[in-house]
Amino acid sequence: MIQKVPLTELKNRMSCFRKHMDISNPDWEMAVIFSKINLYYFTGTMQDGMLIVPKNEEATFWVRRSYERALDESLFSNIEPMNSFRDAAKSVNKVSKGSEESKLPDTVYLETEVVPLALYQRFQKYFPFKNVKSVDSQIAAVRAVKSEYELSLLREAGRIHQHVLEDLVPDMLREGMSEASLSTELFSVLVEEGHHGACRFGMFDTEMILGNVCFGESSIYPTYFNGPGGKLGLCPAAPLLGSRDRKLRKGDLVFVDVGCGVDGYHTDKTMTYMFGSSLPQYAVDIHNKCVDIQNEAAAILKPGTSPSEIYNTIMNKLDEEFLQNFMGFGDRKVKFIGHGVGLLIDETPVIADGFDEPLHEGMVFALEPKKGIENIGMVGIENTFIVTSEGGECITGDNPGLIPVF
Amino acid sequence: MIQKVPLTELKNRMSCFRKHMDISNPDWEMAVIFSKINLYYFTGTMQDGMLIVPKNEEATFWVRRSYERALDESLFSNIEPMNSFRDAAKSVNKVSKGSEESKLPDTVYLETEVVPLALYQRFQKYFPFKNVKSVDSQIAAVRAVKSEYELSLLREAGRIHQHVLEDLVPDMLREGMSEASLSTELFSVLVEEGHHGACRFGMFDTEMILGNVCFGESSIYPTYFNGPGGKLGLCPAAPLLGSRDRKLRKGDLVFVDVGCGVDGYHTDKTMTYMFGSSLPQYAVDIHNKCVDIQNEAAAILKPGTSPSEIYNTIMNKLDEEFLQNFMGFGDRKVKFIGHGVGLLIDETPVIADGFDEPLHEGMVFALEPKKGIENIGMVGIENTFIVTSEGGECITGDNPGLIPVF
Repeated sequence: MIQKVPLTELKNRMSCFRKHMDISNPDWEMAVIFSKINLYYFTGTMQDGMLIVPKNEEATFWVRRSYERALDESLFSNIEPMNSFRDAAKSVNKVSKGSEESKLPDTVYLETEVVPLALYQRFQKYFPFKNVKSVDSQIAAVRAVKSEYELSLLREAGRIHQHVLEDLVPDMLREGMSEASLSTELFSVLVEEGHHGACRFGMFDTEMILGNVCFGESSIYPTYFNGPGGKLGLCPAAPLLGSRDRKLRKGDLVFVDVGCGVDGYHTDKTMTYMFGSSLPQYAVDIHNKCVDIQNEAAAILKPGTSPSEIYNTIMNKLDEEFLQNFMGFGDRKVKFIGHGVGLLIDETPVIADGFDEPLHEGMVFALEPKKGIENIGMVGIENTFIVTSEGGECITGDNPGLIPVF
Repeated sequence: MIQKVPLTELKNRMSCFRKHMDISNPDWEMAVIFSKINLYYFTGTMQDGMLIVPKNEEATFWVRRSYERALDESLFSNIEPMNSFRDAAKSVNKVSKGSEESKLPDTVYLETEVVPLALYQRFQKYFPFKNVKSVDSQIAAVRAVKSEYELSLLREAGRIHQHVLEDLVPDMLREGMSEASLSTELFSVLVEEGHHGACRFGMFDTEMILGNVCFGESSIYPTYFNGPGGKLGLCPAAPLLGSRDRKLRKGDLVFVDVGCGVDGYHTDKTMTYMFGSSLPQYAVDIHNKCVDIQNEAAAILKPGTSPSEIYNTIMNKLDEEFLQNFMGFGDRKVKFIGHGVGLLIDETPVIADGFDEPLHEGMVFALEPKKGIENIGMVGIENTFIVTSEGGECITGDNPGLIPVF
């Protein structure tokens, strides 16, 4: 009944990580992983604990809660229970150097983008490292290239995503319904069709249940979120779901930008609908241009190209007028046109300046050219693509958007 | 249309915080707040940025994204835009001591339980503090005592919570439905009835959309979560919603432990149902004893009593047999019988050993005596109470649970 991550998969991930560290940080001696997402990546379970990875020994997953569940879920070969860091510290100190006077290395590699100061202090009490270095980008680089197993999960997420957004949403739109209602109905349908029911972001303190579900100009209302779209949200204290006040009216552009996931792996997709009547031709033209941009970028999503090359190839072709409100309304522009996607919706590399490493086969990206239009909302599109030698293979459907729902 | 937190409320919160710091950390000079929950508490908006609180000057909320939305949502008097920490650093250095050679204080008070190492490093580059001290417990102590405004939101959350769990859930249970379906249907109904659509935890890397929705023995299956109940969850990679495989059968105990919130403030409530037939009498007896324990603890939830007193009064009366599987099945016991609740579901103080400070009028607690029973699941109850001189005032309903749904 439990979908376990295959052992070969777990072993391969750890081995890729070690190889990556040996190249990028040849003097590394120990990494310790705390975040549930990376624990899941390396062990197949996200129980609370820490994964200690010494350079020259087998890694150990120390589980605080629940050890039983970790054993049920994970094929990882080395799982130990702990009540506190003290238990793990005793054992690590005894084993790691084979001597009673054993010492930890000076430097520990941690997920510094995730581990809070106080957690580190509690940890350091029993693991008195002198220095901390970041392991965030190294793990991200390993996670960026997906295995066949991971791609099969992503393809399944994409299939559900396409079916729900392209086939089912049109029948869900009813005049007078609120954004909040469409949000919860859509969430139910996604889960019913196979979505894993979560939508995960890596950025600090960023919450999401579903994504952005917006009627009309709501999709250009500013949010704290680092994406091109906006939304009203339910209330200042919980701006996650759509607004309860904004009701669907004839003539509205409907903007649905949500995640869908299977066994942890997300695809990202945006679909737009014209409810009750067509949009003005200039808005349709802008939308179609965004679709062309997506396809153009997808065509060059090939091994060897770099994200910055793709970004600049696309951006340099756009004239000043089109660039206005492109990738964000007003001054709320984001500086990318796509992003990696996998266990998190916001993975690296990002299709943006500064990402100059060449792409590899098996990387997965969401491309999302979008443009805000005053009094109408956000047009454009988003789909998820696998990098192949033929260019990006779309796994979330081929509908060009602005689906008429009359 | 936007529900703004009143200015008097914001001013009072900041003033309570300053007073608390003056007493607990008389030599404090500056606190900087990053977490969205505390930003919301002090400013009424959770836009991305930081709130700088110097001891002797007005606080400033520096907003990275979105400044516009922060202005729309917040009545806080001092909101400034920033692109990066540099902008804020320039201005703080210029203003804070009135001299060009101004210096920051040596020590900054931060939310060390929330701020990741890397965020602190980026911040410290422009704000070169020498020491960091924790401001977590001080803010938690201020937040623990709710104002009349906050209590009115909590009462409204409690009203919705009662209505949905006591009146509506019985009609939602259908033989053969999955836990996952009940989860998403319940989420939709809660939002429709007024729930703000989020369920927030403070504990490191702890996710929750709704809570635990379990059929039968699923409610005693172990999780990483620090609570008495358990759940199967949807899959190892996303154990948030209920299981897709576990279908409702006649004779099942149904266990629903979910949060409900209004404008950021949560109540916490657990309701149980007997589906299709009654539970055996011994299970009903254990359940009833849990209800008695809840009521007994509620009766002494008065100003002046301490959480540890309440905890020990209750625990000392229970015999060894009853304590088996009480507050967690097997060895998965938690060491509390209740917890503070508000902007987070897991606030302090906790009704547990070690919390010796006396209660104040206006504190709010969830009391949740529960006990696991093999092959049946988790029985017991949970409701949310306001501390009053008459004892805890229940704001989430009075149904004793095990509602028969035949």
